[in-house]
Formats: sequence, structure tokens, C-alpha cells
Amino acid sequence: MDLSLPNPSWSKDMRLLFDQFMKKSEDGSWKHLPSYKNKFSRRIEDIKVFFPDAKLIKEKISQAQLFPRNFEEGLGFEYAMFHNHAEDRTVCIFQGGPYLQGAPGFLHGGAIATMIDSTLGMTALIAGGIVMTANLNINFKRPIPLCSVVVINSQVDKVEGRKLFLSCNIRSVDEQTLYSEATRLYPTNVCGIAVQKWLCYHGLFVKLDPEKSLT
Amino acid sequence: MDLSLPNPSWSKDMRLLFDQFMKKSEDGSWKHLPSYKNKFSRRIEDIKVFFPDAKLIKEKISQAQLFPRNFEEGLGFEYAMFHNHAEDRTVCIFQGGPYLQGAPGFLHGGAIATMIDSTLGMTALIAGGIVMTANLNINFKRPIPLCSVVVINSQVDKVEGRKLFLSCNIRSVDEQTLYSEATRLYPTNVCGIAVQKWLCYHGLFVKLDPEKSLT
Repeated sequence: MDLSLPNPSWSKDMRLLFDQFMKKSEDGSWKHLPSYKNKFSRRIEDIKVFFPDAKLIKEKISQAQLFPRNFEEGLGFEYAMFHNHAEDRTVCIFQGGPYLQGAPGFLHGGAIATMIDSTLGMTALIAGGIVMTANLNINFKRPIPLCSVVVINSQVDKVEGRKLFLSCNIRSVDEQTLYSEATRLYPTNVCGIAVQKWLCYHGLFVKLDPEKSLT
Repeated sequence: MDLSLPNPSWSKDMRLLFDQFMKKSEDGSWKHLPSYKNKFSRRIEDIKVFFPDAKLIKEKISQAQLFPRNFEEGLGFEYAMFHNHAEDRTVCIFQGGPYLQGAPGFLHGGAIATMIDSTLGMTALIAGGIVMTANLNINFKRPIPLCSVVVINSQVDKVEGRKLFLSCNIRSVDEQTLYSEATRLYPTNVCGIAVQKWLCYHGLFVKLDPEKSLT
């Protein structure tokens, strides 16, 4: 089930933005990106190699689900992403529910970081990089009120060899308030080779290092 | 209910570490820090000022709960923190459950950022700073397997006027594997004054700016 479609918990602002981007998607310049709870959880046997305790795999890893999609409707992360291929950028519209509280009445810094990480990760993935180890640098400019809607704009700034440099900002719907800014670097060749192989196998790894054997 | 006490979902490693730190706490050099789901959610009326839509307050903000404590036992963030006052540092033992997945079999970067933010935030809070707007810079060195136990070490590096500089790292239980490193800056005087007032009222604000009126 695509969880990035409107549901009854979405506020007017959220629906309005969604409709605007769906309209922009009609001519193909933007594309709506679907989002699933456990799209990547199917090949549990492949994960075994990373876990010393076999019982854990059976009992817990089989329950594994994508972090930002594990809340009941309206309580956690409500979001939808749209990608503009020509401009190498992704927009995420995000409504953070009451279970994401940090300081009273505001989103937890970790919840903000989660949506930044998800949006930048998606942008990097589409741009052909990967995504397991990286630097993430966030400036939290203003606290984001719980249950408000914000817009995350992320883009590829630069490609240097096998390094992808991305940045994003989070603004209010009217664009007048800047909540956060972030940069992220994705070096694609610093993971362990086992991880690279595994990701490659699952089609996540687009930009492989030709110097490294996968056998 | 203190959610930082052992429960049946904790692995052997997690229990062992908890017992070790509880033992270190017997002479008072370390202190176990309790953790609650909704400790700060009581004065909903104070939050109203930040929300234009009154309905939202009634319907949603009343459900507000601390982000990392909103998962069923064992599925999300299982953690306990201990503070060493003499050394200005906090240790968090953390077991990330199957609902925190990012790449398959590994913790989501946002889940890691959430625990880093929580641990550094607690360290800053105890050191007398606050905590609403800040810079957070994370180097993800290696992916952390789902359901494994890691140790987050955070400390105050420097105090410059009203700025607090903190850092932390995340290591495996045997300390041989470095998963992540992070730094965080807490400038205490960049929040809006309304937020400062509100936090002060709730006893969160220890280090107030004497230049700014609170009336």
C-alpha cells in the first residue's frame, strides 16, 4: 500500500500542497514517489550475515519495517515526496504528528533529522549514489510546531567523482519561515564490500565502484 | 512509568550494560536518568500560542508524547541513560528495534540521529544550556545492524559564554567498532523570546540571558 497518498489525518495545507504537486506532475516534469512500509524487508535470509544471534533474526528482523512509516495514521510522519528529474531535486511535504514531540509542542530534533535523511537519501538514490555511510550537518534555525505542515526542498549541489553533495532546507508552507538547513555528503565507496554487494543485489546500488570486485 | 528500566525485549548485552552502570551508580559517581513518555505534555494551554488552528490543539496536541518513547516494547527505541556529573558526560545504552529500519537490516539514519539528539540534549540540559535551536553534525561511519546494542558516549567539550559545544560517539558493546561520531552546538540565545519564556516556565531553561526581559 502506498502510504504517501492523502488520508483523513492530513490537514488542508497538506492536501492543498499534494494537489498542487500532483497537478505539476501531469506534464511529467515532476513525479510522485510512492512509499511503502516494508518494501525492502523481503529477503530476510540476506540479512543474517550481519547478525550473530540467530534467534533475533527469526523473532525480530522478520518484523522489520521502514522507520518513518511505523506510526498509526496521523500520529507520526505523514509525508509525500515529488521528484523533478531535470532539476535533480526532490520536494517532501511533511506533517509531523503528536507522537513526534521533543520539547513540548514541537517536533523532536530526531524527527526532523529523520525526514531530512529520508528526503536527501531519496534524492541521492535517484541521482545514482548510495547512501549507507555519510556526513549529515543540520542547522536547526527555529523549532517546528507539532502538527504543522512544512516543505522540505532537497537538491544535488555537486558531483565530484564518487562523491555526491546534497543540501536541503525546511520552510513553512508560505515559504516565509526557514526552519532548518542541512547538507549531506554521500561517499559511495566507504561501505564494507559485503554491504555494497547486498545493496547491489537489491537494486539499490546504482553507482558501483568499477575497481571493486563483487564476487 | 520510567521506561528506561529493563523489560523482556532487552537482550543479554543490554541487561549486562544496564547492570554495570547501576553498579557504578551505587557510589553516586554515576546517576541513572529516568525517562517518561509524556512528562512535558501537561500544560497544553501553554502550547496554544504556537498553533493557529484551535481544533488541532484539542484533537492532536493532547496526544503529544516524547518521540523516542512511542513504540511498543522492543519494536523501537529501547534505551537507558546514565550521567556522570564530575565528568560532564552521559552514556546511553541503546537497542534499536525492527521498526527503526532504514536500509534493509540496518537502523535508519534518522533513528541514529534521534538517539544522538536525545543523548546530547540531555547532556546539554544537565550542563545548564538549552536546547531548541542548534547545529548537529553527524558522521555515519558504519551502518548499525537492527536489534544490536550500541553505546553512545556524549560529553561537554567546551563552554564559551552562552555557547555549549558537545560531542558524542557510538560504539559497539566491546568498543571495537566505531559506528558514528557527532558534534553539537547549543547557542542559548537564538530562540524566539516566547519559546524561551515557555521553557523557562517549565523549568527547562537553566541558563537564561540576563539581558533579555521575560515579561
